Amino acid sequence: MNKIYVVGIGPGEYEQMTIKAANVLKSCDTIIGYTVYVKLVEEYFPGKEFLTTPMKKEVDRCVLAFEEAMKGKTVAMICSGDAGVYGMSGLMYEIGTRYPDVEIEVVCGVTAAIGGAGVLGAPLIHDFCVISLSDLLTPWEKIEKRLLSASEADLSIVLYNPSSKKRHDYLQKACDLMMQFKSPDTVCGTVVNIGREGQSGTVMTLKELRDTQVDMFTTVFIGNSQTKNVNGKMVTPRGYKNV
Amino acid sequence: MNKIYVVGIGPGEYEQMTIKAANVLKSCDTIIGYTVYVKLVEEYFPGKEFLTTPMKKEVDRCVLAFEEAMKGKTVAMICSGDAGVYGMSGLMYEIGTRYPDVEIEVVCGVTAAIGGAGVLGAPLIHDFCVISLSDLLTPWEKIEKRLLSASEADLSIVLYNPSSKKRHDYLQKACDLMMQFKSPDTVCGTVVNIGREGQSGTVMTLKELRDTQVDMFTTVFIGNSQTKNVNGKMVTPRGYKNV
Repeated sequence: MNKIYVVGIGPGEYEQMTIKAANVLKSCDTIIGYTVYVKLVEEYFPGKEFLTTPMKKEVDRCVLAFEEAMKGKTVAMICSGDAGVYGMSGLMYEIGTRYPDVEIEVVCGVTAAIGGAGVLGAPLIHDFCVISLSDLLTPWEKIEKRLLSASEADLSIVLYNPSSKKRHDYLQKACDLMMQFKSPDTVCGTVVNIGREGQSGTVMTLKELRDTQVDMFTTVFIGNSQTKNVNGKMVTPRGYKNV
Repeated sequence: MNKIYVVGIGPGEYEQMTIKAANVLKSCDTIIGYTVYVKLVEEYFPGKEFLTTPMKKEVDRCVLAFEEAMKGKTVAMICSGDAGVYGMSGLMYEIGTRYPDVEIEVVCGVTAAIGGAGVLGAPLIHDFCVISLSDLLTPWEKIEKRLLSASEADLSIVLYNPSSKKRHDYLQKACDLMMQFKSPDTVCGTVVNIGREGQSGTVMTLKELRDTQVDMFTTVFIGNSQTKNVNGKMVTPRGYKNV
């Protein structure tokens, strides 16, 4: 049977890929992905056929993967982070209904929430929520509701896509919403270039985060009411009772 | 400087560990962990010193790691899944304040939410929330509030620790709470033994989930209002507008 692996390559650094992901990329014929992600991996997998499509061409990329698989090739569709967190695996299953002869297997990876948490310390030890601030496919009112509900429930929050050229004030708007329920002194953190050159984490308060300008390569972490700054690390305790 | 790595070994299967995690375990002197997790890895790292402590002895386990590191050994403290999601990295930073000469580095892994999602299909493509049903260190009222808020905000939800001998009806209680805001027909899934022998995923509705008995090796997924059953896979679309 024709086969496509949808592979999360992790944050970027080769070593943060799972052994399975590396084995799949070594054994497949063709690696397909967004141009930037293909550049991250191509040096480690010489001799493979690499195919790319630009951003916002995700549907075309999926169709390309299925068409290549139908030629009898074993195909790996790569995603940064995990394949299933804002990744390509969902669209692959949806478009896959048109290609019943192609089997899909998801190969998991370390998503930015996990990778970034490790840089900042341990912000996600307790219940948390992952929210994207991109309103390209989601109405802003829905995002707003989620920020408010998660804050009211005292969840730690990870923000993906916190900013872009068109959305330069979205993080500020999100912080103002979260501060309706979270203290301005809540411990927060930002991480840029997770697992890539220039990786760097900064711990700050929610009030400070509000006035911080971040870019699209940043992942943002907001603690719960118990999160502490422990010698510069962002640490959420295991619960609400004494350790 | 004395060094401890806090290492997420992934769901269980050796291949789902990151390359970095495997390299750290190969290069360290001593591997410390909960008995069950040590059993999962010991065959792959012959010649290492293995130390274990039983469940609920997490503080003792951390102290043991620091004491071993103070003897000049390079220590790896292992956690199943990721080290930072209900893992040991938080407690290690907290207890680490007593050992200023020991450096801590977190090595990330694939947590059950990510690993289980890959088995079920693509349930976490959009915003989601991770909640543990264990009330050992968290008041039940807090858990209840989180289930209600996340459901009201139409988040996909992953439940860790959905059941135990003492808490056999917690998943049922949680489903009843979520059904205050989520349709009984919401697409859900359970995964047992992620990345281990007997791994198996089942897709069902929220109404069916309510009457399903799960054990402590199960991770539970509840979709958002858009989540679909695509040929037996649980698939959440990328947003609320047409693909």
